Amino acid sequence: MRGKFSGFLLLPQILFIILFGVFVEYDTVAGPRNASSTAGIEEFDNLYPMFQDVHVMIFIGFGFLMTFLKRYGFGSVGFNFMLAAFVIQWTILMRGCLDLEDIKDGKINISLESFLNADFACGAVLISFGAVLGVLGPIQLIVMAVLEVVFYSVNEFVIAHKFQISDIGGSMVIHTFGAYFGLAVSLMHWKPEFKNSHPKEESVYHADIFAMIGTLFLWLFWPSFNGAPAAGSIIGERAVINTVFSLAAAGVCGFAMSSIVDKSGKISMVHVQNATLAGGVAAGAVANLKLGPLGAIIIGSASGLLSVAGYAYITPAIQKHMKIHDTCGVHNLHGMPGVLSGFAAVVFAKLTTATTYTDIELAAIYPGRVNNLDFQQQANLQLAGLAVTLGIAIFAMCCIAQIYCIKTFV
Amino acid sequence: MRGKFSGFLLLPQILFIILFGVFVEYDTVAGPRNASSTAGIEEFDNLYPMFQDVHVMIFIGFGFLMTFLKRYGFGSVGFNFMLAAFVIQWTILMRGCLDLEDIKDGKINISLESFLNADFACGAVLISFGAVLGVLGPIQLIVMAVLEVVFYSVNEFVIAHKFQISDIGGSMVIHTFGAYFGLAVSLMHWKPEFKNSHPKEESVYHADIFAMIGTLFLWLFWPSFNGAPAAGSIIGERAVINTVFSLAAAGVCGFAMSSIVDKSGKISMVHVQNATLAGGVAAGAVANLKLGPLGAIIIGSASGLLSVAGYAYITPAIQKHMKIHDTCGVHNLHGMPGVLSGFAAVVFAKLTTATTYTDIELAAIYPGRVNNLDFQQQANLQLAGLAVTLGIAIFAMCCIAQIYCIKTFV
Amino acid sequence: MRGKFSGFLLLPQILFIILFGVFVEYDTVAGPRNASSTAGIEEFDNLYPMFQDVHVMIFIGFGFLMTFLKRYGFGSVGFNFMLAAFVIQWTILMRGCLDLEDIKDGKINISLESFLNADFACGAVLISFGAVLGVLGPIQLIVMAVLEVVFYSVNEFVIAHKFQISDIGGSMVIHTFGAYFGLAVSLMHWKPEFKNSHPKEESVYHADIFAMIGTLFLWLFWPSFNGAPAAGSIIGERAVINTVFSLAAAGVCGFAMSSIVDKSGKISMVHVQNATLAGGVAAGAVANLKLGPLGAIIIGSASGLLSVAGYAYITPAIQKHMKIHDTCGVHNLHGMPGVLSGFAAVVFAKLTTATTYTDIELAAIYPGRVNNLDFQQQANLQLAGLAVTLGIAIFAMCCIAQIYCIKTFV
Repeated sequence: MRGKFSGFLLLPQILFIILFGVFVEYDTVAGPRNASSTAGIEEFDNLYPMFQDVHVMIFIGFGFLMTFLKRYGFGSVGFNFMLAAFVIQWTILMRGCLDLEDIKDGKINISLESFLNADFACGAVLISFGAVLGVLGPIQLIVMAVLEVVFYSVNEFVIAHKFQISDIGGSMVIHTFGAYFGLAVSLMHWKPEFKNSHPKEESVYHADIFAMIGTLFLWLFWPSFNGAPAAGSIIGERAVINTVFSLAAAGVCGFAMSSIVDKSGKISMVHVQNATLAGGVAAGAVANLKLGPLGAIIIGSASGLLSVAGYAYITPAIQKHMKIHDTCGVHNLHGMPGVLSGFAAVVFAKLTTATTYTDIELAAIYPGRVNNLDFQQQANLQLAGLAVTLGIAIFAMCCIAQIYCIKTFV
Repeated sequence: MRGKFSGFLLLPQILFIILFGVFVEYDTVAGPRNASSTAGIEEFDNLYPMFQDVHVMIFIGFGFLMTFLKRYGFGSVGFNFMLAAFVIQWTILMRGCLDLEDIKDGKINISLESFLNADFACGAVLISFGAVLGVLGPIQLIVMAVLEVVFYSVNEFVIAHKFQISDIGGSMVIHTFGAYFGLAVSLMHWKPEFKNSHPKEESVYHADIFAMIGTLFLWLFWPSFNGAPAAGSIIGERAVINTVFSLAAAGVCGFAMSSIVDKSGKISMVHVQNATLAGGVAAGAVANLKLGPLGAIIIGSASGLLSVAGYAYITPAIQKHMKIHDTCGVHNLHGMPGVLSGFAAVVFAKLTTATTYTDIELAAIYPGRVNNLDFQQQANLQLAGLAVTLGIAIFAMCCIAQIYCIKTFV
Repeated sequence: MRGKFSGFLLLPQILFIILFGVFVEYDTVAGPRNASSTAGIEEFDNLYPMFQDVHVMIFIGFGFLMTFLKRYGFGSVGFNFMLAAFVIQWTILMRGCLDLEDIKDGKINISLESFLNADFACGAVLISFGAVLGVLGPIQLIVMAVLEVVFYSVNEFVIAHKFQISDIGGSMVIHTFGAYFGLAVSLMHWKPEFKNSHPKEESVYHADIFAMIGTLFLWLFWPSFNGAPAAGSIIGERAVINTVFSLAAAGVCGFAMSSIVDKSGKISMVHVQNATLAGGVAAGAVANLKLGPLGAIIIGSASGLLSVAGYAYITPAIQKHMKIHDTCGVHNLHGMPGVLSGFAAVVFAKLTTATTYTDIELAAIYPGRVNNLDFQQQANLQLAGLAVTLGIAIFAMCCIAQIYCIKTFV
């Protein structure tokens, strides 16, 4: 075990060193630029605070959110850290391969935005990690991360670049993909003893307060998650405002619904820790659209109610009947709210008219619509994007990964 | 209980959805704006990092600060979260009613500043919550929050809009109001057993470290709290500098005084967790004025000493003689330092001369003085503002709220 | 004890009040400036988010990182807080004495940058604190802080101002200095019982999760630490990018190496909490240089491996043979990676040619080279800077401090 685990980390790291040496260069912003130009500096200054918020979400937010389980505390924070440090490097290379990074003269040009996109890929991997926490060992987690980033990038390439769908906060690309990929991995690792609830998975008092650190930083910084891709533009502010409204509504509804589903009316800490965040996921695919405060609050309220219902009724059912063990309940926090957000994006695309957005907005939101104002087609593409995401997450994982990789190597 | 609690959350939430639908719209910044205009973007970019700091203070800072009590850990973080998510929505509507929000064509126009102001109202409610932690149940807390936001907005309307007092960090509007409102609520809920110290209120080791998370984030981000209303202007930087000096001085004096008031010279964790923050409150009403580094350090030092003295001598006395139970000691952290800051604002208004500030500064600090340089009158208004705040907090609460609402409904 | 400790805090605080009154004034940015000028505002707005990140690192990061020891939890967070609040004020005065602050008309002119530099001095003091945690009492810590800031400022004056070395993230000025100063203090306070490992110094489960809060905030915000001195310029973005790469690589290598040095292949939490951060220290002196992503990843990887090796082999050896007790292992996190970074800075200065940087970059990176492109001389100065840092840290402390101050007073 000793050498094997280290090998699974160090060999890729050596490969990273070689590949970064050959293929990666600073973007002109950080590199050999005409010294009097300051074009990129303002962009950097606008993005940096939002990037740091997202960075905190990935490492503190996701890491601590998962500490609520009795004996996984250190494992969740620690492996979360390890996977994210690994995935940041791997994602830049993988996205570069698929032309999703800025390429010049055959080199990937790195800027702060590269790290933002790498953090987003970490998000997807860590969501999947939440589904299989305590089930996969460290080496299996690394293998899963390596593979997941490949499929994640392919999915992003198809739906964001080819279909040109709108998904600013990554509700499809990150949350839906990460959740269903994780559930597919979990399905492959089903063991009969999962039918009964795991004693390690009871929550404990101190652990619940640690988990609240994760919850709160996620809740607070989610507006940056949904707004960062449009930092410094008018779209960015709208994404922030919609997300705050959605999160506030999900917060209130999460508390209320938690008391409703409990026989004695008690509020469950697990519900509070997770359902309150569903508002951020649900706002993701539509945060930059003109939902109006009303639309944002309705979406947030619905996601909070849905997420608690998921914890109370759906997770036990899929564990019992579908042989899928979902340690942290990612289906309720990321899966269903992500799909909800995907459908909302279809609806709002349908409702868009030629006068809804200015041309500059349109270029940022629906780049495919600038020269072709057929919003019915955009709605179809949004729906196709959601279907492709689910398809790639579940089937690719089930078929390819099971056969060739995870079971063989480990 | 089950349905009742959920009802007290969901009915207002449904009302929010209706009212937001009818009365709330994006500000032009986030909405149907001429696409080539970028006027509001810079404003947003300057405010956003400070807003997020304030957001962290409200949810992480206040939430974790109150975890120091033995068995209220989850209650404090959890209800803190619930109340704040609720109050953010309610405040926007209430402030809109009183014309404190930006109104156009009969609609409240939302921008990031609306959320900053909503977070400030959350601050007041959570300070009151600190006074009655463990005393009020969840439904009573919601009723308190609904009512407090009404009186909070009325007080803001009177002293900020009508009197045009200077109170950038809300020492009067937020801290003094929140503390004395909370103490008034506590007075109404006095029970004889509070005379003896509550066993649940002893602090425990791990809880003390959790509380330090709250303390430190409050201490670190307080400069943003006092500076955010003037983000992106020269006044904002001075507010930050004064607040950092005041907090550093309060930190040193809090530690020193804690050792002095203990018979064996030991430092009390509760003092450290609270008195170190008094410097932020005490700087609040004067942070944007030309105190000089000297003035800021003197105010901070005084507040640190005063706050520890309050914990050691004043809180036990008011508990014994005035039948007011102050669970978290908000009188020492927010009440007295807030009043101190209010008096400092009177003194500095008196000391102002025609040459102290430029016209642009004057318009930001003392809008009423731009065309009328009578600073003696400003000092009188500042004093009146402090009196009105105390009056509305205590009397309105004692008379109206007790009779009509809290005791009847719950 | 009671009066003595408070006296050691309050007497300097009174002195601070007097000295700030006589010698300190706002910078024109915050003070009596022509109201129509907005020159300093943009600078403030660019620096503020990075300053707050550094602020979080000093108070939350360092404070919680040291909670991993069984019984020092509150002591580490609490005294960390006290020392930092004290040192912020003291540093501004001390740096002012040596002309390192902005002086006009005989007064130190305060701006946000003054606080950033004060936070950096706090960093050095808190690193030294980590070496002697549990060994020095509170009064001794204050005396150490007072003296350390003097030598810290002298060292900064010599190597940054006189030699004009490049050390943007303070790997020499802060980390190397702080670590070896702390080890020298520890050497003076050696007790025979330190030979056996201290029972208080075992790590415990909850404490390890608290420590991860410190670790993660340090890891996340280190790019701001290395980038803040060049906030708002092209050099700042490169510093951020290099530091993120170095930290990610150190993270992966820290996990891998931790498993290698353990006989059963288990990952040590102490290694994870510390070695992952070595990448930030190691990038410090070279973060603004054109390392290329390759260079940054190699430096980070090396530092992660070196740091774990230090915990496993070097710390036990120096404890046994050199009578130096290093409570938190600052030699591994700050000492060796700092020296590594210093040597890297020598190498990269040697590799610089006339075409590597533009003139504007050169003025920011190597101000001494603008009119004299002898980079061999720069390399020599970098080496001399490293030597002076080690010399001042160790010898000045050993000779002067032991004789005159610490042992006498306390």
